Amino acid sequence: MPATMKALRKTQAGKGLRVEKIQVPSIGPSDVLVRVKASSICGTDLHIYGWDRWSQGRIKPPVTLGHEFCGVVEQAGEEVTAVKASDRVSAEMHLNCGHCHQCRLGQAHICQNLRIIGIDLDGAFAEFVKIPATNIWKLDPAIPEHYAAILDPLGNAVHTVLAGAIAGQTVLVTGCGPIGLMSIAVSKACGSSTVFATETNQHRRELAQEMGAHYVLNPMNEDPVKRILEATGGTGVDVLLEMSGNPVAIQQGFRALRAGGRASLLGIPTENVPLDLVQDVIFKGATVQGIYGRRMYETWVQMTALLKVGRVNLEPLFGERIELDNFEAAFAKLQNGLAGKILMYPNGIHK
Amino acid sequence: MPATMKALRKTQAGKGLRVEKIQVPSIGPSDVLVRVKASSICGTDLHIYGWDRWSQGRIKPPVTLGHEFCGVVEQAGEEVTAVKASDRVSAEMHLNCGHCHQCRLGQAHICQNLRIIGIDLDGAFAEFVKIPATNIWKLDPAIPEHYAAILDPLGNAVHTVLAGAIAGQTVLVTGCGPIGLMSIAVSKACGSSTVFATETNQHRRELAQEMGAHYVLNPMNEDPVKRILEATGGTGVDVLLEMSGNPVAIQQGFRALRAGGRASLLGIPTENVPLDLVQDVIFKGATVQGIYGRRMYETWVQMTALLKVGRVNLEPLFGERIELDNFEAAFAKLQNGLAGKILMYPNGIHK
Amino acid sequence: MPATMKALRKTQAGKGLRVEKIQVPSIGPSDVLVRVKASSICGTDLHIYGWDRWSQGRIKPPVTLGHEFCGVVEQAGEEVTAVKASDRVSAEMHLNCGHCHQCRLGQAHICQNLRIIGIDLDGAFAEFVKIPATNIWKLDPAIPEHYAAILDPLGNAVHTVLAGAIAGQTVLVTGCGPIGLMSIAVSKACGSSTVFATETNQHRRELAQEMGAHYVLNPMNEDPVKRILEATGGTGVDVLLEMSGNPVAIQQGFRALRAGGRASLLGIPTENVPLDLVQDVIFKGATVQGIYGRRMYETWVQMTALLKVGRVNLEPLFGERIELDNFEAAFAKLQNGLAGKILMYPNGIHK
Amino acid sequence: MPATMKALRKTQAGKGLRVEKIQVPSIGPSDVLVRVKASSICGTDLHIYGWDRWSQGRIKPPVTLGHEFCGVVEQAGEEVTAVKASDRVSAEMHLNCGHCHQCRLGQAHICQNLRIIGIDLDGAFAEFVKIPATNIWKLDPAIPEHYAAILDPLGNAVHTVLAGAIAGQTVLVTGCGPIGLMSIAVSKACGSSTVFATETNQHRRELAQEMGAHYVLNPMNEDPVKRILEATGGTGVDVLLEMSGNPVAIQQGFRALRAGGRASLLGIPTENVPLDLVQDVIFKGATVQGIYGRRMYETWVQMTALLKVGRVNLEPLFGERIELDNFEAAFAKLQNGLAGKILMYPNGIHK
Repeated sequence: MPATMKALRKTQAGKGLRVEKIQVPSIGPSDVLVRVKASSICGTDLHIYGWDRWSQGRIKPPVTLGHEFCGVVEQAGEEVTAVKASDRVSAEMHLNCGHCHQCRLGQAHICQNLRIIGIDLDGAFAEFVKIPATNIWKLDPAIPEHYAAILDPLGNAVHTVLAGAIAGQTVLVTGCGPIGLMSIAVSKACGSSTVFATETNQHRRELAQEMGAHYVLNPMNEDPVKRILEATGGTGVDVLLEMSGNPVAIQQGFRALRAGGRASLLGIPTENVPLDLVQDVIFKGATVQGIYGRRMYETWVQMTALLKVGRVNLEPLFGERIELDNFEAAFAKLQNGLAGKILMYPNGIHK
Repeated sequence: MPATMKALRKTQAGKGLRVEKIQVPSIGPSDVLVRVKASSICGTDLHIYGWDRWSQGRIKPPVTLGHEFCGVVEQAGEEVTAVKASDRVSAEMHLNCGHCHQCRLGQAHICQNLRIIGIDLDGAFAEFVKIPATNIWKLDPAIPEHYAAILDPLGNAVHTVLAGAIAGQTVLVTGCGPIGLMSIAVSKACGSSTVFATETNQHRRELAQEMGAHYVLNPMNEDPVKRILEATGGTGVDVLLEMSGNPVAIQQGFRALRAGGRASLLGIPTENVPLDLVQDVIFKGATVQGIYGRRMYETWVQMTALLKVGRVNLEPLFGERIELDNFEAAFAKLQNGLAGKILMYPNGIHK
Repeated sequence: MPATMKALRKTQAGKGLRVEKIQVPSIGPSDVLVRVKASSICGTDLHIYGWDRWSQGRIKPPVTLGHEFCGVVEQAGEEVTAVKASDRVSAEMHLNCGHCHQCRLGQAHICQNLRIIGIDLDGAFAEFVKIPATNIWKLDPAIPEHYAAILDPLGNAVHTVLAGAIAGQTVLVTGCGPIGLMSIAVSKACGSSTVFATETNQHRRELAQEMGAHYVLNPMNEDPVKRILEATGGTGVDVLLEMSGNPVAIQQGFRALRAGGRASLLGIPTENVPLDLVQDVIFKGATVQGIYGRRMYETWVQMTALLKVGRVNLEPLFGERIELDNFEAAFAKLQNGLAGKILMYPNGIHK
Repeated sequence: MPATMKALRKTQAGKGLRVEKIQVPSIGPSDVLVRVKASSICGTDLHIYGWDRWSQGRIKPPVTLGHEFCGVVEQAGEEVTAVKASDRVSAEMHLNCGHCHQCRLGQAHICQNLRIIGIDLDGAFAEFVKIPATNIWKLDPAIPEHYAAILDPLGNAVHTVLAGAIAGQTVLVTGCGPIGLMSIAVSKACGSSTVFATETNQHRRELAQEMGAHYVLNPMNEDPVKRILEATGGTGVDVLLEMSGNPVAIQQGFRALRAGGRASLLGIPTENVPLDLVQDVIFKGATVQGIYGRRMYETWVQMTALLKVGRVNLEPLFGERIELDNFEAAFAKLQNGLAGKILMYPNGIHK
């Protein structure tokens, strides 16, 4: 084992990232050291790159980014029994405290003392990453490497879709970034009826079509609420999966939701959203769910179960595969709204 | 049986109501004619009296008001089998269509074609009222008349409280009008842990205390969010029962809600409410429920079951008892914010 | 309209059925008269044909059989608004009372006073059948006639599969008669993970394979519990869908169920089944559900939603199509355990 | 701190127990050492004393018994942050593995690799007991010591009662041992409607009355099913809480259960129970739940929340308080069916 490794890091307050040589992490008795095979860039990584307001408040440089990845166990601490060297793994990068009210209630994903590897601690855009054994997820052999690298965002989609009934439900996905697109595929795999999607970006609309949405609507060209109400005999959709964070899309989503429907909100608006609570929630008897992260670890079980029988086809989502050193071009491309998940290979690209 | 009867009616567009002599309704084969024993004035009746914007759009005079009541069956149509003359009854005054999407799903209370007796059809502020047999609720002998007269708003409270887990939950009731006060009693009867209540009106705060709230807070004098967070070790409440419709109270309620908590909204704001969806709903993984009416007829079963074993003490809520002719004084008193349910007796006051 | 029609009836206590000419039913104001296009033979019809013990206690001849069908509205009573002549329809043949505890709770499918058309009242093995308008189900144009004729048993399957979580769940179907086979297709359409099926009849095992089960096991040749435990890493299946009514299959199903799993029982055993409640239910923390009929009408909404987007392929299930007069051969074939749904056409076979 | 301590132990295969002097346990970095204040004898302890078949298969002497207790933290390992010396605590004595399917799904109470302190490892019938920090439950100051000593069985009751809806539900408790009696109190605290209890032992029937059951029935003297059906208008109870493990009581419980009801089974039958699955489960559309242990740690949160507002009065349940050395008399008394929880004080009896 080498003593040092390459890592893509925020080295100081301000825009940009840098590839550095740093020490390979040393692990404690309950930790696992993972050799990273493939990692993937998240929208959050773009925010940190750009050093937006949220990043300025949260990130304490220097820190290695990266929370979407898969790899192979290099070393397991002496108390670790669930995995061993050379096991293929990914990991839940949210670390929960274990003793707050939410942890005690089985809601560890909204722990009051959550820390995130790749944000608060050194992450997976590196040759090696250190993870507590509790958070390691052993991969089913049926799951291919490129899928394994994006289980984190797929988990967001699965958590959102399965936060309520989905079989036989009509669905509206507002916002077709990667998680929105995954939500279309997951909804269909889980028995949804008609799926509507709204998206302003043309490339993403094409991907939404490829993922199997029945109606892909451009809200710049037509009134999506009107179209959805027509197509549902005036009733509206059973389920809204809000993936955009855009206030207009959120309001349209609520107007298109049927009385008694479910609205699951994952997208992050950057400002307060004025809601017509009376018409859109109260008189409708609607259920609105805030969705954060992935359930620990129910969502991981569900993802594995869906993927191992080949239920969810995510191929259209995958974009370029690059070496860690070539991160700048990848970040630029994503910044410009070109969708798809770009995979980075800190230990060299392989099939 | 008399041919005519007294009824309290909106006789023309504009403020005010009038007691008139009108025909006793004639019933069809599936209807029931009920001799009204006791009725109760709802906030909605005040809006109709005052002829506010909502009333102007909805009410088509002439119409008899009144949707909270109990009485005795006078006549049952020939196809009616579930009740017979002299049965003690109340009724669900929301009439559902039976064939829309929501009706087919068992969500009749949010039927797309809902009509309300006492709003869209002649109601119970009269000596007699006509009700379809499906909507008649036969009273358990254990339920006293004054409770039977307010099952409609009690149903709102029960529907809200039981829309999610309540046993062992900490609860915040924002707004202590009659339904808020009932919610305190119902929550406690159903095993809630600590109950917080906020209310600006002093009389209502005193009633909240009588109903058993552990903390009754005046948001004009102190920051209720701060107090609640302190009292819950920084966690917040498990359940928010929003009964005020006041935007500030709604925002405070959401801030006081714990991550993973439930917010059940019954109060009707008169304008859009800007919500911090990110902090208050999404990152919290909160569940927000719009609550409307009462479940048909699960809520009625639940109310009966709670009342018949004496679980819910509503005595502090009852105010004056008046004849129909004396309605003006009663409406004036309620208009001035004096809480409590005023009972009206169209067939004469009795015990 | 003709005054008389052909009908397949139990005319007297004892084995067998007879095609008779009887009066076309006359309808009341809330009824619908349907011209039957296609009907389908249920296992219950075989029991009535054979005049088993259950039939002797329940059936009061003369009565027309048939409760799986579709057709076209011929006449609608004057109070009927939800359908009109020439609408394509099927129907829920269970008639509920509307006022018992279960009906009031939204559990009409287990009404205390249930009557069944085709068992307690004249059914659909006839040119025309009379149905209360409440029970008529208007068909989505996307649903083909042969599927529409078997919505009743498909509803059993959908009710069973969707009685709990199914997406990402491993499933065991014990018993591959028509409803078991449908359950395989419905489970997969709704996102199940690995599906196991057990069945002793070879033809049915082949059909189970066609419906997409991953493992089709013959309990006469191998220990299905052992195979299932091996294939699930010793954990067992998440969901048991019991469709056989066979005591051995039921016991195997429970042993193959994982701790914390769901067992949904639809098959009807003919005797008491000794259960190891401690190992199979209590220590497992299992949930066992009795499943009866279809939810009224949530299951119909779900079926429609699944079928209209082409989620469920039932083609392998369909067998012969015959005229009503040729019923004897069809009943004989089904009696001999040849699976598949045989369709009968009281008004002549058409495409 | 002393080096040795008194402990009540199974020292060899065979009947009986012995108080011995043994080493005070030494703790690891994630463990907590608790000075035991009060402990309580469980039915399981009686089985181990008597060396029944189950004990012979499970217990590996020597081992200290005792899994119901409370105490004060004496020492906390260096990695422990959630509690510190002198904190008042109890503990969940079921140790889960953390990585099996059930643990990953948040069902740790039915972990595939469960070990129990006081059964598989040295327990709390001793001056000190060693507990992993994850399993320590810090006591709310409002919970008195004698209640804190029986949180384990109270947790069984709370887990059972709250495994489904309870507010407004009619309830039958079959079997009034300590957990059955607690279930009566907990049901009432959580808003149950009429509560029925069956029990053959007179002393326990008297306690059931004290706990607030509305009907306490002796199945030796009258048919409890008949009485319950009469009292519920022929419908049956909404909820069965089976606490006896007695086959006759189980069968009666199922017959008294309404269609659509819930049966939660905690009592442990010693043999297979023949169930009429058709009439009692399938045609009824009943839900049957196996209940084991307590949810980790949701049940602990619920218990604390109920107890801290004084909702649950368990005073009638408490029997004698004894020193550890006097265990023989206590075990004899319990063996003879005298109910009530006997508290043992390994460090001396105090208020």
